[in-house]
Amino acid sequence: MILVLKQGISKEDTDNICLWMSKFGVSANPIFGSGTTIIGLVGDTSSIDVHLFDNDERIEKVMKVQEPFKRANRKFHPDDTIVDAGHGVMIGGSKIIIAAGPCSVESDEQVGLIAGAVKDSGAKIVRGGAFKPRTSPYAFQGLKAEGLMYMRNAGQRNDMPVVSEITNPSQIELFNDYVDIIQVGTRNMQNFELLKELGKSRKPILLKRGFANTIEELLMSAEYIMSSGNQNVILCERGIRTYETATRNTLDISAVPVLKRMSHLPVFVDPSHAAGMAWLVEPLSKAAIAAGADGLIIEVHNDPKNALSDGQQSLTPEEFSGLMNKLKPLAELMGRSI
Amino acid sequence: MILVLKQGISKEDTDNICLWMSKFGVSANPIFGSGTTIIGLVGDTSSIDVHLFDNDERIEKVMKVQEPFKRANRKFHPDDTIVDAGHGVMIGGSKIIIAAGPCSVESDEQVGLIAGAVKDSGAKIVRGGAFKPRTSPYAFQGLKAEGLMYMRNAGQRNDMPVVSEITNPSQIELFNDYVDIIQVGTRNMQNFELLKELGKSRKPILLKRGFANTIEELLMSAEYIMSSGNQNVILCERGIRTYETATRNTLDISAVPVLKRMSHLPVFVDPSHAAGMAWLVEPLSKAAIAAGADGLIIEVHNDPKNALSDGQQSLTPEEFSGLMNKLKPLAELMGRSI
Amino acid sequence: MILVLKQGISKEDTDNICLWMSKFGVSANPIFGSGTTIIGLVGDTSSIDVHLFDNDERIEKVMKVQEPFKRANRKFHPDDTIVDAGHGVMIGGSKIIIAAGPCSVESDEQVGLIAGAVKDSGAKIVRGGAFKPRTSPYAFQGLKAEGLMYMRNAGQRNDMPVVSEITNPSQIELFNDYVDIIQVGTRNMQNFELLKELGKSRKPILLKRGFANTIEELLMSAEYIMSSGNQNVILCERGIRTYETATRNTLDISAVPVLKRMSHLPVFVDPSHAAGMAWLVEPLSKAAIAAGADGLIIEVHNDPKNALSDGQQSLTPEEFSGLMNKLKPLAELMGRSI
Amino acid sequence: MILVLKQGISKEDTDNICLWMSKFGVSANPIFGSGTTIIGLVGDTSSIDVHLFDNDERIEKVMKVQEPFKRANRKFHPDDTIVDAGHGVMIGGSKIIIAAGPCSVESDEQVGLIAGAVKDSGAKIVRGGAFKPRTSPYAFQGLKAEGLMYMRNAGQRNDMPVVSEITNPSQIELFNDYVDIIQVGTRNMQNFELLKELGKSRKPILLKRGFANTIEELLMSAEYIMSSGNQNVILCERGIRTYETATRNTLDISAVPVLKRMSHLPVFVDPSHAAGMAWLVEPLSKAAIAAGADGLIIEVHNDPKNALSDGQQSLTPEEFSGLMNKLKPLAELMGRSI
Repeated sequence: MILVLKQGISKEDTDNICLWMSKFGVSANPIFGSGTTIIGLVGDTSSIDVHLFDNDERIEKVMKVQEPFKRANRKFHPDDTIVDAGHGVMIGGSKIIIAAGPCSVESDEQVGLIAGAVKDSGAKIVRGGAFKPRTSPYAFQGLKAEGLMYMRNAGQRNDMPVVSEITNPSQIELFNDYVDIIQVGTRNMQNFELLKELGKSRKPILLKRGFANTIEELLMSAEYIMSSGNQNVILCERGIRTYETATRNTLDISAVPVLKRMSHLPVFVDPSHAAGMAWLVEPLSKAAIAAGADGLIIEVHNDPKNALSDGQQSLTPEEFSGLMNKLKPLAELMGRSI
Repeated sequence: MILVLKQGISKEDTDNICLWMSKFGVSANPIFGSGTTIIGLVGDTSSIDVHLFDNDERIEKVMKVQEPFKRANRKFHPDDTIVDAGHGVMIGGSKIIIAAGPCSVESDEQVGLIAGAVKDSGAKIVRGGAFKPRTSPYAFQGLKAEGLMYMRNAGQRNDMPVVSEITNPSQIELFNDYVDIIQVGTRNMQNFELLKELGKSRKPILLKRGFANTIEELLMSAEYIMSSGNQNVILCERGIRTYETATRNTLDISAVPVLKRMSHLPVFVDPSHAAGMAWLVEPLSKAAIAAGADGLIIEVHNDPKNALSDGQQSLTPEEFSGLMNKLKPLAELMGRSI
Repeated sequence: MILVLKQGISKEDTDNICLWMSKFGVSANPIFGSGTTIIGLVGDTSSIDVHLFDNDERIEKVMKVQEPFKRANRKFHPDDTIVDAGHGVMIGGSKIIIAAGPCSVESDEQVGLIAGAVKDSGAKIVRGGAFKPRTSPYAFQGLKAEGLMYMRNAGQRNDMPVVSEITNPSQIELFNDYVDIIQVGTRNMQNFELLKELGKSRKPILLKRGFANTIEELLMSAEYIMSSGNQNVILCERGIRTYETATRNTLDISAVPVLKRMSHLPVFVDPSHAAGMAWLVEPLSKAAIAAGADGLIIEVHNDPKNALSDGQQSLTPEEFSGLMNKLKPLAELMGRSI
Repeated sequence: MILVLKQGISKEDTDNICLWMSKFGVSANPIFGSGTTIIGLVGDTSSIDVHLFDNDERIEKVMKVQEPFKRANRKFHPDDTIVDAGHGVMIGGSKIIIAAGPCSVESDEQVGLIAGAVKDSGAKIVRGGAFKPRTSPYAFQGLKAEGLMYMRNAGQRNDMPVVSEITNPSQIELFNDYVDIIQVGTRNMQNFELLKELGKSRKPILLKRGFANTIEELLMSAEYIMSSGNQNVILCERGIRTYETATRNTLDISAVPVLKRMSHLPVFVDPSHAAGMAWLVEPLSKAAIAAGADGLIIEVHNDPKNALSDGQQSLTPEEFSGLMNKLKPLAELMGRSI
């Protein structure tokens, strides 16, 4: 941590700050310049809140030298984390894992059918929403617990792990019972109460980036889960909000290599939500794999035109099968497999 | 609702779509152009999901003619809503209401002291955080239930309503017992589970705009609360996330007149969080009142340098008193009072 | 074009608006609804300015049905445009074209050396900046005309077309003489005076997207050049400005398939400027090709550490050669070649 | 300037870097920490390019301690700059200066009429566009030199300085002859060729912030003009591009106090372009003055409905007069006058 002092600060003031800092157990090293004096703080500065100096009239600004996340940081954990999703599915290893399924679970039969179809095409995980966070209170809100039950059925019948989105800490028991991977949606990435509860679960957490959150904030939210005890976190880029309106969100493709470099956690991409349109899913899926993603989560619906939510971005099982046939050789070119 | 058909669509296809639409109880009126055919849908289109047409290969795009929010809409409720916050404080009327207090409650004595001081300067509501949503799991998380108790004490001793932020639906009983106004923070504006629960409360809700949410989304979140039964919603602009880094957030001052025009609900401004720096609170407070805000929520701390959170943006009670002396004549020039 | 009338507008007013519109040579078709009346305008509405109605107290809003760009629009020009860059290099066909070279031209020898090296690795065009738009007036501003001369030499010696950025309409003669492709940089995408002049040139124009411009605005800028007479426009995505600070800009990878769908013009990607860091160039180059880009423009410098500008994002010739070896099989998998 | 070294860097490497830095005439002070070593550079670091270290494998990152602009910086020039606009109009002093007039000059009579009307209401400067930068090549492009002549006439007849926007360095002589203040529009804020030319003029420059440029970049563009010899720069906030679509742009009201603190230059606000709608001009004008603006630039048109550009955001002369009657007492409350 570096303190930049105000111009014209006295030697005495500088010494006083150094003395003050030494009480935090760090070593304070002043550098006297012609115009500016700075103090370099060396040692464990984690106990010093960066805002401690905010109203200190002697200090111009404070600069952090180190990243604020530890457990998610590749520096302290150089090897890739591999998350065991159950049913033999390992996330973050040499295989690229594709999760697919409907935006909303609509019936036991529907999700079972789709699960079987996507599995035949090579998907390893079935996805489906039971608790739906919708911008409008007048839109379909999901089948809730019943939907989770259908998800579990679909997973068991097809021997696949299932992933579904949680929206409230009170649902955790239900999710512990019914799903293999718990998804945190974009609107809940900074629902810290929820993250802390998920830290007590042993289930893998698919943590989606908030649509207006930075990469560092995503890693800080992973840190919430990990510091509460659950190390099985999968990060997921799903598009951010920008001024551009031609697509629903702007897929931040650079986030994939940046996250892989900063963290040891697996990185997924959700091309369906980033694009908002089915025809964009193919080019964005290819781009994600080319950029190094460990997996994709793709919306597939047997009848997109009559889907209860997000039909416009869903592929049919046939389209999904065609996509998978294109992604497989691409994965191999990248030294991996699907 | 208007359907724009794909170029070259046949007369027969157009007739089929009109027939289909008529089953929804609306009247479908085709207009045949040289290049483009459109269909105007007249009647109650609220039962037609805009995504119904998403994958329809006959339809180019769908345009909504009306806003998706009803209860919060000034068109259907032309008169200003006035929210009764208790202790004789009415929000949204001719008086501009100032809420002030510490970012975090630190002790019974602290919040009581600050409450008394800000009341002397003209504040009508005391604010203070007990459950703190923090980006880092390693930062101070608030005094929780104990903090709420101190808030209630401060309010009772000083005969003022108190406002504090809720972060989890499970806290609602606690908030119903202890606070007069329940605040929804920027990270929870789209925590729809929480909003639905708040709709069942009778307490006024101070709904802060999400830092990356549109004005329409803010009104849709108000709609969640109102459609669940609670009409006492106060909207609050607190700065949005943009590419600019000179301030913590960019205060969207236009949101004040835009919200006042679109909705009948009272509109507050939070200059402290928008700015992130104490010296900016004065100009932004003035701008907010000049733009027509119904109230402000300002951070005041007795010892900002040692505050447990957000000290850099807090005023001292003396600075707050000086600010209030400048805001009072401004409110009067605007035809209101503080 | 669709006019949505204010609520409660009279039949007489509606008829008057229809009569008024008919004077523009279009057919006006009113649809009377229970709450809302709309008027559909059919025919050539291009002579009607959308702002004509801005202050008309009878009209709620105006909705455009068609895109405002014509010449760049794939609807009116379904086949891909192929731009002949000279020296046998065709852009927009089955070959993916790689342009490479230094950010700034530093000497005749330097650019000649780099041109030879990148050609050996498979680059088809040499790039290099002679007129440098720099945020700071105190930074290196380029070798100017001398730099262009060195570019021409490098192109001639290596039998490659050269591309360089123009910053002022007064430089056009110089560029017509010395370069094969004229680049419009991100800060000049809406320098309309410059675009109009370039429309009079016969040289291909590499038009970079403004760092805060929409895809539609990019196509409108292409329209400026094309409507002034020059149809040889190559579009280039190079990252947009967002709130994220982990990368210099956010590469909008979706812009590639969106532009290919909306327009018939070739689409390039600049991974170097989007990323701002050399290690990101490889994953972003792969993503761009996977998403369907027709070409890349990559910074290569013989001595990045001592480059006069943008060294941090430049590859060495050896790194570039390694990258090309990875991109070639990827291009083939996409049904193309490099 | 501070260099943060990579973890595990040797003592010898550190010494070598210090030796290297000393050749730039600065003093290099290493601080050896447990995990991290930093080097503080003291002295005149302006000759050291921050990118010098970009590919240095020994250096993790470089932190700038000082702002990169000098002439525009209040630190080196504490007193407010007052710009003499001619005709007795001083900008940046105790008077708040209002510039008003049409978006586009349409005829000699029109601009003369409006100039007289706005002067009667208290405006001190007449504005009007002759060279219009328009997104679409098919929109009205302005009367050009003829328009400037009409502007000069309007100024002379009414004894007022006139301001108009320049779009090309080749127009400078024309502007030197015909206008009193030369405006740089939002799309040309980083047209560095134009800025350098304007630095050679003696006319005051009204420099509008680019719609996606930071406050620091605005000051760097002012620096371009000032370092080329012209110190008469007026900064102008006019709204920035964000994800919000309810207004044309988001007026960054905080930019006013931030610019006043960082720089000694006068700060204007353009509420017309920020809002994009006439009814928003009043609240935004009030907010701007309350926040400390030194002036406003407002669009006024005698017949907004038939204006050739931007009619929807123009006030009539009567509306402008009503607005001025509200702004005058507000200016006085702020200790200034109009």
